[in-house]
Amino acid sequence: MPKTRLDTDRIRAARRVIDPVFLDTPLYRCEALGSRLGCTVSVKVETANPVRSFKARGTELVASLLAGRGARAAVCASAGNLGQALAWSGRARGLDVTVVASRRAPAVKLDRIHALGARLELVDGDFEEARERAAALARQEGIRLVEDSLDIETCEGAATIGLELVQGAPSFDAVLIALGGGALATGVGHVVKALAPGVEVICVQPLGAPAMTHSWRRRRVVTTDSARTIADGVAGRRPLAAVLEDLLLVADDALLVRESSIVAGMRMLFDQAGLVVEPSAALGIAAVLENRDRFAGRHVVTILCGSNVDADDYRRWIGPAPTRAP
Amino acid sequence: MPKTRLDTDRIRAARRVIDPVFLDTPLYRCEALGSRLGCTVSVKVETANPVRSFKARGTELVASLLAGRGARAAVCASAGNLGQALAWSGRARGLDVTVVASRRAPAVKLDRIHALGARLELVDGDFEEARERAAALARQEGIRLVEDSLDIETCEGAATIGLELVQGAPSFDAVLIALGGGALATGVGHVVKALAPGVEVICVQPLGAPAMTHSWRRRRVVTTDSARTIADGVAGRRPLAAVLEDLLLVADDALLVRESSIVAGMRMLFDQAGLVVEPSAALGIAAVLENRDRFAGRHVVTILCGSNVDADDYRRWIGPAPTRAP
Repeated sequence: MPKTRLDTDRIRAARRVIDPVFLDTPLYRCEALGSRLGCTVSVKVETANPVRSFKARGTELVASLLAGRGARAAVCASAGNLGQALAWSGRARGLDVTVVASRRAPAVKLDRIHALGARLELVDGDFEEARERAAALARQEGIRLVEDSLDIETCEGAATIGLELVQGAPSFDAVLIALGGGALATGVGHVVKALAPGVEVICVQPLGAPAMTHSWRRRRVVTTDSARTIADGVAGRRPLAAVLEDLLLVADDALLVRESSIVAGMRMLFDQAGLVVEPSAALGIAAVLENRDRFAGRHVVTILCGSNVDADDYRRWIGPAPTRAP
Repeated sequence: MPKTRLDTDRIRAARRVIDPVFLDTPLYRCEALGSRLGCTVSVKVETANPVRSFKARGTELVASLLAGRGARAAVCASAGNLGQALAWSGRARGLDVTVVASRRAPAVKLDRIHALGARLELVDGDFEEARERAAALARQEGIRLVEDSLDIETCEGAATIGLELVQGAPSFDAVLIALGGGALATGVGHVVKALAPGVEVICVQPLGAPAMTHSWRRRRVVTTDSARTIADGVAGRRPLAAVLEDLLLVADDALLVRESSIVAGMRMLFDQAGLVVEPSAALGIAAVLENRDRFAGRHVVTILCGSNVDADDYRRWIGPAPTRAP
């Protein structure tokens, strides 16, 4: 058992708190993808739910706890997906939710946060500035600050994906996990290492936003001055020490991939699997594309963690239809 | 209880035979779709599985029965999705599967039937010619002919979707079901009428392939000379009398929709829900688009029955990315 901050029994118990609409998501072998990639590929589809990402697994826990304690409000910083999820979970429990986001976040994510009834506050700068502003708001207003990856509920909620991956006899050799703040990677990684220790846990991050990967490799927090990637869901610059400690216990490797590979991954998931994903969710396929020899003949599972894309950006990424033959 | 050929207890038992990868598919309210359509919209997502359609629910039953009886082979005619599903289910149980399809079926469906290890025979003409050829092959070779919508397993397999829709307290007012041969409509319709009789069962077919709808309206089999629609999955011309009889017992209405509405439905599912569907699976949304007053303020659920599209056709249907502002 890895000695992370997470607890396997609590993760099992979390399944009883999370709305079932977010649980037991599709998991299946996609042969068309596998034949193109030279390995067996299974996908865990976290996009077919009311918030189109896995994040509600965590916010369901947070919002339940808060409502159980009589809290009336919560605030979070978000790259977009956590905000939607907290808005959804908070609304269901009568919590006033405030989300602080970067003005540069995809408009579609900001629109949905608003549509779900949350108060939305935009900041100049990136996710790190949003984090500072959210913390200030929480202090001023005396309300709970929900901190993605730091708050154990966000990690243990994500970790319920891990339970679904390893139930029965997991047949795969490696799990490929998008790495941003680390909730998904430490959560799934904890469960996999606890219950299926033979499975390799591989984190994948964009070359343009490599802070956590650099931190994992050097075994200390490394920050970056900027984060430039289309994978807005994982574009942090300042890893959290407590999360890094957990990641060091559960990750077998951390890979960096090029933007062009992320686009190729999205395109392949569309062409071969009929699945729309946001850039962060294509990191796993991108890693296979860049490391074909490493994965050749093996069985990998990749978590398709979200599909909140701007539809027109997505049309550009998958490219135009070819002109018809005359 | 409607006195169809189907049996609710057998449908419940079918859940134990069907590979779980095809069961308990996502079902959720999509608020972004609902706000555009002026009603509450829930989607039942049958596309996130190894064959990208609901058809394997039925072929799992057929293949299990055949294998249990020591059969070695089976043949079916298919517009594409049944063939993939029977190939998958047959391969898992050591059956030699032959699929007869029209040369005009989408290449992607034919490729996948082949990739799944089935023998593929192509005929000139449309689905009805494929049906004749499959029947001839079955006679010649003495093997089981699997007939979609006529064979009770194909209907009762599809009917397991109905169980998933009505479990708990179904909150919706109407279910919108793509209508082709009738397996999906009679299957889901049977369960809804048996277990949630207050829910309206509405079938939707393309104006260009209206044979079953005309038959339902006139209460007798009406055939057509041609079927012209992009919704290749429902493009039959010769309804089966036994299936029509069941449909008359369970359907409250049958609507015909324009091709342009099917395209608009696919586009809306992509833009608002991030879901890729084939034309047949957009029929429900198309019906709401053409009948906004009828559905205003109500809660409808639509079954997204498949996603086997040619990726380039799909790019054309959802349209190009707008050119960027300078």
